[in-house]
Formats: sequence, structure tokens, C-alpha cells
Amino acid sequence: MKEVVSVSAKISTGNFFEDFKIGQTVRHATPRTVTTGDVALYNGLFGSRFAVQSSDEFARRSGYPRSPIDDLLVFHIVFGKTVPDISLNAVANLGYADCRFLMPVYPGDTLTATSEVIGLKENSNKKTGIVYVRSRGANQNGDTVLDYARWVMVRKRDESAAPSAEKVPDLPKQVDPAVLGNACPPIDTKAYDTVLAGSPHRFGDYSAGEKIDHVSGITVEDAEHMIATRLYQNTARIHFDHFTESKGRFGKRLIYGGHAISLARALSFNGLGNAFHVAAINGGRHVNPLFAGLTVFAWSEVLAKADLPGRSDVGALRLRTIATKDRPCADFPMKNGEEYDPAVILDLDYWVLIPR
Amino acid sequence: MKEVVSVSAKISTGNFFEDFKIGQTVRHATPRTVTTGDVALYNGLFGSRFAVQSSDEFARRSGYPRSPIDDLLVFHIVFGKTVPDISLNAVANLGYADCRFLMPVYPGDTLTATSEVIGLKENSNKKTGIVYVRSRGANQNGDTVLDYARWVMVRKRDESAAPSAEKVPDLPKQVDPAVLGNACPPIDTKAYDTVLAGSPHRFGDYSAGEKIDHVSGITVEDAEHMIATRLYQNTARIHFDHFTESKGRFGKRLIYGGHAISLARALSFNGLGNAFHVAAINGGRHVNPLFAGLTVFAWSEVLAKADLPGRSDVGALRLRTIATKDRPCADFPMKNGEEYDPAVILDLDYWVLIPR
Amino acid sequence: MKEVVSVSAKISTGNFFEDFKIGQTVRHATPRTVTTGDVALYNGLFGSRFAVQSSDEFARRSGYPRSPIDDLLVFHIVFGKTVPDISLNAVANLGYADCRFLMPVYPGDTLTATSEVIGLKENSNKKTGIVYVRSRGANQNGDTVLDYARWVMVRKRDESAAPSAEKVPDLPKQVDPAVLGNACPPIDTKAYDTVLAGSPHRFGDYSAGEKIDHVSGITVEDAEHMIATRLYQNTARIHFDHFTESKGRFGKRLIYGGHAISLARALSFNGLGNAFHVAAINGGRHVNPLFAGLTVFAWSEVLAKADLPGRSDVGALRLRTIATKDRPCADFPMKNGEEYDPAVILDLDYWVLIPR
Repeated sequence: MKEVVSVSAKISTGNFFEDFKIGQTVRHATPRTVTTGDVALYNGLFGSRFAVQSSDEFARRSGYPRSPIDDLLVFHIVFGKTVPDISLNAVANLGYADCRFLMPVYPGDTLTATSEVIGLKENSNKKTGIVYVRSRGANQNGDTVLDYARWVMVRKRDESAAPSAEKVPDLPKQVDPAVLGNACPPIDTKAYDTVLAGSPHRFGDYSAGEKIDHVSGITVEDAEHMIATRLYQNTARIHFDHFTESKGRFGKRLIYGGHAISLARALSFNGLGNAFHVAAINGGRHVNPLFAGLTVFAWSEVLAKADLPGRSDVGALRLRTIATKDRPCADFPMKNGEEYDPAVILDLDYWVLIPR
Repeated sequence: MKEVVSVSAKISTGNFFEDFKIGQTVRHATPRTVTTGDVALYNGLFGSRFAVQSSDEFARRSGYPRSPIDDLLVFHIVFGKTVPDISLNAVANLGYADCRFLMPVYPGDTLTATSEVIGLKENSNKKTGIVYVRSRGANQNGDTVLDYARWVMVRKRDESAAPSAEKVPDLPKQVDPAVLGNACPPIDTKAYDTVLAGSPHRFGDYSAGEKIDHVSGITVEDAEHMIATRLYQNTARIHFDHFTESKGRFGKRLIYGGHAISLARALSFNGLGNAFHVAAINGGRHVNPLFAGLTVFAWSEVLAKADLPGRSDVGALRLRTIATKDRPCADFPMKNGEEYDPAVILDLDYWVLIPR
Repeated sequence: MKEVVSVSAKISTGNFFEDFKIGQTVRHATPRTVTTGDVALYNGLFGSRFAVQSSDEFARRSGYPRSPIDDLLVFHIVFGKTVPDISLNAVANLGYADCRFLMPVYPGDTLTATSEVIGLKENSNKKTGIVYVRSRGANQNGDTVLDYARWVMVRKRDESAAPSAEKVPDLPKQVDPAVLGNACPPIDTKAYDTVLAGSPHRFGDYSAGEKIDHVSGITVEDAEHMIATRLYQNTARIHFDHFTESKGRFGKRLIYGGHAISLARALSFNGLGNAFHVAAINGGRHVNPLFAGLTVFAWSEVLAKADLPGRSDVGALRLRTIATKDRPCADFPMKNGEEYDPAVILDLDYWVLIPR
């Protein structure tokens, strides 16, 4: 005979749609000191080759005190902290906007995260609603290193519960180039060695409208995406629990969307080798789910170029990077009419900095 | 034509039951400097979220000079060193007792291990015997950081060999609360930030008899448990060699029992988020084998609570944590009559410290 | 309708046979700072147990300032850098020679690589040719830490293109023992603790002609070899892209040959526990391909012993280590007549140093 089951009050079951209030601020657990160990594991998982992040010597000659932590690793760690409070009961991660990297993070720095609820919108089915948050990652000195808006569709606990208030926030379509240099020290463009960096192409060599196929593909294994996602202390169960997910929506574990972003960024080295810093993410959409065993390819289009006010060392490229699964990108797959090609998994719009 | 095969005298084939003598002391290879790299890989494999181990800042505010190495990582490394001498010819790892964490270990510390044979008991079939050892892990200053008893069933080389002597040691059923604070500096309970730590529940909030389902499950992949077990330099072949094991007892690689302990500990964060330090293991049993592809769940019961003599900062919870495979724990599975539920893989009895 | 496809001029598609010129020197991207994080991941992937590399304390007592980076990790990182320029269009990695480890590498050191083309030989089918390079790895001070020759069969872009010149370089069959001590500081052989090191056998205990089966096997998973190979920033696509390779020569991803070398070296600890330093590789051949799911075994023969001029602390063993797949090595498998046993994957001829 089974015991009577009661859920312990000590268990965190996450927030439901009706638990969020506009203006509410959440301080997230768990603070996290980032180390060269995290860097090594991130490198092993993605094979990144941008020289500034790979070599302390190269970073120093270029203008950094040492190699900074990969921007996307910072993003994933901060994002991971928000999951237990914001998206444990999410049905879908709908989008990002206005994501700005504001200060470099170095090994030894400790990251914490907070989120503010900036919007709420119940869905007409009354079963779910959209929660908009602005999340901030800070270092041990309290400086904001990362700031972004995100919206997720979250389940309601009780269909009859009404939202406290409704509001859809106004979010910028793109991050203003004026703030793109915040996390980038002055770069010594003469000392920046393009041979060591692996590409001769600087800011002036790129044109808006240019398309680049990043050629290579990387197959993802379950062990890899789970190690990555745990490294970020991201607790979304759908990534880790084959037993439950085998009976769920996809019949298998879903890979954290950020995994595809990191793979696409690593692949983009071939063609964008000097684009050493992701300065901002204007918007991003996980178009289709990714599962283990599939191979990720990527291509990019240069959407625009921008000068940074007062800086002659680096310029910004606005990129749209498309990642696909089991579909090479030599012909730049994206949409067939209104619909995304079913192979597309990621449509990411972001700014990178590149030496002039 | 095959060459005549002779086993090189330079090969370590491990000790057999009749090789052990009561009172014998073994110094184990290989000394091991623990680094933040090990911490990162451990985090990637288990996704631990206890704030003291995750953040140097949090650790410093709480009373540590920096984040200590996860207690179980220390255990696995010390345990791993004992394998080539003690359990290379083991049939089964039968139990642990009186396991005490006596001093914190920090990145940069170097661990070595020794074992003393404290008991021997031949089995009636004359093919195997039980070896009892007390193993100690020490740091580079010679301080004991970990001390535990363990017993394993070890094959005999020669059925006719008689044991040198027989003795079953008296081992305590539980570690005395008086020694539980040894590896824990005085904790500044006011500075200890429960929001950052991820749980509001302190010592006073727990009651003996309370049961907590840790809810989530984590599926284990072969790559993961092999990476973990190699990280500990544990050489037990059954974990690594699919070719041989595919024809062996289980038809596949067996996962190191300690892997389930670390998974259960990581899962237990949900419900026990402030139980930052495993101070002692009273006893543990690997009830059933674990294999890749299965999903581990866990639940815990608070068996008892204890004050630490002279300390008002932290208290001790005696926990029994049950881990299962492919079996969620909402109804707290354990035994059906005398027999363990076949889904149970681990029954662990241990003390954790938690701020008051 | 598909867009017209054009390959971006910004993409690196690697060099083809006719692109190489004798005497040409290539500076490779990407510089790489090696850290204790890399060491931890390498240990997790291979389970190495040589005490000098495992313990800073042991290394210091033996004569090093701290644990040096595993020689093969240095090799893989330097090798990885050469891939985008030398072997992206390789059909086969044919051999190594005259590989010398010339200076220890420590955590924090930054590695760069250069290669000189030392030979070219077109194949009679006009579709491929053999490129001989001498590659050098240097640290941040410009000191050469590693120097080796390698030859690979590289595709031609254009069958009608003639090589600029042809030359087959003269390469030594073995590295002269006189240079084997370059990367090894004076070892304090009394302080070198063979119990901690895990083997009582010193230089004098080995004899030329002696064969040692290393007994254990390690199964390789796709996640593991991909993590390893990305850690080295090796970009050879055949290791990572299941989608493309499933339709290719092997029907699956091919494992980087160096993975087998590291596995064989880690296995060789059992029998060669004090052979702490790979001083040189005389030659190596990847006899058969290795794939995920297979189990690697290894055995070694002591080909020769050598004194190091002016040194009484260490001696050199010339070893031939054979690695196999799904084939234990108790009977020392190698060749059946002229042909290698089909289970053999690696035939490696190298020098190790071992205390006297």
C-alpha cells in the first residue's frame, strides 16, 4: 500500500503565471565563482577559437588584463540562475531582447543574478501566460555585467486565477551601437595579430548584406548538453530527465536553447575569426527544438555595420546567425515563404565587435 | 600461432583476500592536487548548487577563506586511491561506516590516502572473504581530512588458502555529533544569505521524521560516469570496459556507486538547500546496480537532529537519502516488506550541517 | 527556389597539396593558455595516474617547480593548431617522426605553433600528394617546447596542378638519447617516492625485449573524443560531424588518432608507473581507425634502454606500445605475417624517462 503523498513545503516547485507581479524583483540563487576550470570545460564542449578568449598573452597585447570569460558562458550562467524562479514552469522560452554585455568577466569573478518582472499577459486559453522579465547579472563588486529582457510562456497553477495586472513592455528592436563598447577595453589594433587570430578580415572587410556559410557541423551528444547545462546550474528538468521526457512532448530530452547559440558562435569562427566579442543580442528565437544525435550547422548574414562613438579601434557588425540541424548551410537556408525551413533551429540577431 | 603468455611481474593485479593481514597499513598511489578545474568538471557532471561550494564570495562571508572542495569530491578522490590496493578484485562493495570529514580541502591542496586492514572474514564458500579497512585521506601537511571504514567482498586467489586471522571489527552505527563540526569553520549565520543560498529553511525548520521528495531526475550517460570515475583516478575495470563487461555479470558497464551518491546529493539541494556540508556518513549501501541510460531520483528523511557541542552557528541533520532508478520518489519508495523496492539503488545515512 | 551559392572568401577551406611550397613557414592560429582546467578535463577523459603530473607536491619533491602539463596534452594542443593550415584537406595522417619534448609546460603558459614545409611528393594518381612538415610549439617566451615532423596525404584542388618542387626529407628513425633530458629537470631520485608513484620498478628493473600487457581496457564514447578534440581546438571535421560522416567513408565519426595515443599512455601506467615523462616520439602509425563504442587495450615492448649523457638521475626506455580495439593484449597482438592484426589501431615508438 502506498503512503499518502504530500509535497514538502521545503521543495521549490517554481513560480506559476499568477505568482508574478509587475515590478516585483527577484534575487536569484546560487552565486557562482567562474574559474579557468569553467573555461576549459566550455572549450571542450564547444571548441571555441577566438584568440582573445583563448590566450592570456593575446588578450594582454590586445588591451585586456587577461583573457575574459566567453560572453556566452557569462550569459548561460546568469540565465541558469533565473530558471528556478522564472521558468521552471515554462512551456516555451519565447524570446530575448535588449541583451547587453556591459563589463568583462574574468576568472575569479563571482556572478549573481536578479530579475524584475516587466510585463505580464495572460493567454486566451487561461492555461498559460507570458511573463516578461529584465534580468541582470552582477559581479562581486555589484557592477552589472549583463542586462537582458526575456519572455517566457509560463503555466498557470489555477486556470481561474486572474493576473494581478497586464502589460506588454516596449522593447527595443536593436541595441543602440552607442553602448556596444562598454565591455571592451581600448584595443591596440596594431598589436592585434590577425595571423595568430586566424583571420585577415577586419571591420572594413565586411559589408552589409554579406552572407557567410560557416561550413562545419558539430553533432551533439546527450552527455555534452547535460554537462554544459549543469555547468550553468540550469535546473530545467526537460534537459536532464529521460525517464519523464520519454513519455512527454518530444519523447526525449530537449537540449537547452543556449547550447545551439554557443555551437553557432563557435562555428562562426570560420568566417568571423576576429569578431572576438559578442557585445549585445538584439533578439533571438529558438525556432525548432534540438535533440541529441543531430548535427548543428550555421551561417550568418551581416545585417549592418556601426561605428562606436568616440572609438577608432573597433567597429560593430550586426549579424543574423541561423543555425540548422542535419542541414548544411551552403545555400543559406532560412524561410520558405513565411515559414522557417524545418531544419532551422535558431535565428539570432546580435552585435559583435571586430578590430578596425 | 599465439605466443606463450606470461603475466609481467610489473603489472599490478591487485590484492586477493589471502593477501591481507589485520593491522597491515597500505600507502596508496597516486597523490593528487585538487584544482578549480576539478571543481568545474564535478559541477558539470552533477550540477551541484550549494552556495558555499559555488561562490568564493559566499564562502568568505559565511566564514570560510574561500569555497571548499565539495565533500563528496574529496571522498571520491580518496576512495579512488584505495581501489588498486583494496578492491581491484572485489566482487561487491558492501558498506561504509564511521566516515568523517575532518578538515576542509581547498583548491591547491594535495590529497594522499592510506588504509589499515581492520578486519577479515572468510566466506563459507571459501571463494571470497570480506576485507574491512579504515582509510584515511590526508592533505599536504599530513592532516587527516577524511577517515572512514569500508568493507568489501574480495576474491581469493587460491580457495585452499586460509586467512591469516579473522576478526569482524566493531563499527559505530552513527558518527557522534561531537565531531561533526571539525571540517566546518564558525559560520556567520547573519551574513549567511538564505536568498542567495536558494532556500529559506534553517536548522530550526526541520523536524525528525520529515520526508522530502527531491522531485527532479537526472539521466546518466556512459560518457559522464566514466569521466567522473577517471577524474577520481578510480581504476575499477567494471566501470570502463564495455568489451569485457558485455560478456560479464551485467552485460554492460556498471556505474561507480559513488556516482549515485553525488547525484542524490545534488538532487537533494531541492529541499535541503542550506545543508551545505556533508559532515559524516554513518552508513551506506548500494542496494542495486546503476547503468547508463537510467534516470536517478531521490528522496530524504530527516532521521534525527543534533546540536554540536559549544556551537550555536550550525546544527546537524541526520538524513537518510534513498536514490532510485527510473522511479520518481513522490511516494517515498524504500522497502516492500523486508525487501528493498527493486528501483532503489542507494540507501545512505549521513549527517549534514545547516545554519541555525 | 534555392539561392545561388557562392563560397565566401572569408571562409578558410584549408590548403590543398599544390598550395604548399618547400621552405614555406606557417604561423598557426589560435594561441592557447593552458590551465589547471585543461588538466582536470584531460584527467577526466583519460584517467592518467603518473604522480609527477598528478601532484604538485610530488613534482616539487622530485625536482619540478610544480606539476608540468602532461606531454601528450601539449602535443595535442600544438597538433590541433596545425590542422586548419596543414591537414584540413588530408585524406590520411601518415606518420610522425623526430618528435621531441624540449621544455616543460606549466599551467599559465601560452602555446603557439608554427610549421615549415620540409617535403612534398605527389602521388601517382595525381589526386593527392604527401606533405611533410616540421611543426614547433613555443611558449610565451618564444622557447620551443615541442618539435616534430609529420607527413599527411593531402588532396589536390586541381588534378592538373604540378607541385612546385618535390623532396622527401630524411628523417631520423629514432631521437638521439642525448636530447631526451631537455624537458626534464634534475630528478631527486631519493625523494622520488615509488610507493606514492604506484610502482616499485625503476630504470634498472626493465630489460630490452621485455613485454608488458597493460591489462585494462577503456571504451570510448562519442561525447568523450569530441570533448577531447575540441579541447585541443582541433578542427578536423571528420571527428565531429555525424550527419556528413554517416554518408562518408566510414559511415560514422572517426576518432582523432591522438585519442588512442593518450588512452594507451594512460593504460601503460600499469606496468610503467614510474615512466613519468614522454621525452620523444620516434615514430607512430595509426594502423586502423577507431570509432566510438569500441574498447581500447594496449601492451608495450621495451625496445631499448639508454643512458642520458651526464645524468645519473634518470634513464630512457625506448618503448613500442601497441593499442588495439575490442581485443585484450595478453598475447601481445601485433602482426600476422606482414599484416597488422586487424584489431591493432596504433603502433607507437617513443622514449620515456624513468628514475634510476
